[in-house]
Amino acid sequence: MSDFLLDERLARDSDCLSKLGLCQLRLMKDSRWPWLVLVPQRSGVSEIFELTPLDQAVLTFEINTVAVALQKITGATKINVGALGNVVRQLHVHVIARKEGDPNWPGPVWGHGSAEPWDEAARQAFVDRLNGALA
Amino acid sequence: MSDFLLDERLARDSDCLSKLGLCQLRLMKDSRWPWLVLVPQRSGVSEIFELTPLDQAVLTFEINTVAVALQKITGATKINVGALGNVVRQLHVHVIARKEGDPNWPGPVWGHGSAEPWDEAARQAFVDRLNGALA
Repeated sequence: MSDFLLDERLARDSDCLSKLGLCQLRLMKDSRWPWLVLVPQRSGVSEIFELTPLDQAVLTFEINTVAVALQKITGATKINVGALGNVVRQLHVHVIARKEGDPNWPGPVWGHGSAEPWDEAARQAFVDRLNGALA
Repeated sequence: MSDFLLDERLARDSDCLSKLGLCQLRLMKDSRWPWLVLVPQRSGVSEIFELTPLDQAVLTFEINTVAVALQKITGATKINVGALGNVVRQLHVHVIARKEGDPNWPGPVWGHGSAEPWDEAARQAFVDRLNGALA
């Protein structure tokens, strides 16, 4: 983990909320959807299957822990989970709360329009509720 | 598993190639991308976190087994893995081989244009190679 370096685009587009056992838990700088990203703190990995079996199991656990918390605090219709990486090759997993009528529903969030910044108070309230649900 | 019923839209849009330990392995009827779908044979489940912990672990194993085989036979630049379910709520996981210049690259495949049927010989050759890589 010592040689893990976060991709510059992930660093620019999201903020680190906390560090889980394996992953950085990050919040996208885009208020259109409650949109989290998990980044395993391993170097040189772009596909989930390149992780060790133990890391794969931990990643699954962390994805689902975060997804449950996100569903709980948002009441989302559906949680979208995706590992694409066509643009940013460093392995990262999106966990997004979706509801009917949100931007591009029922299509995917990726590649749709432009990010809209969070209102700082709304962002802090969201982070507080998320941390509460994860605690 | 006895009361598992495949969603009608998944049945219409994809063909079953085989049954793994947990999932049906299905091929989308869309030749634009090598596009597989894993459907856990469990009833009433729409989120990965609704599976039992054992099923979650098996799903992770089956996703990665299929992703490795798909990467091997296609030489894909990137494997895209996603569980969205905004339209079809029955839990299903997409595993898609992507390469530079393919339709909508580097954007996602979901919601882009219309499916293009496979040429039957090309489809059979693909399935044979996939089965070989999974064997």
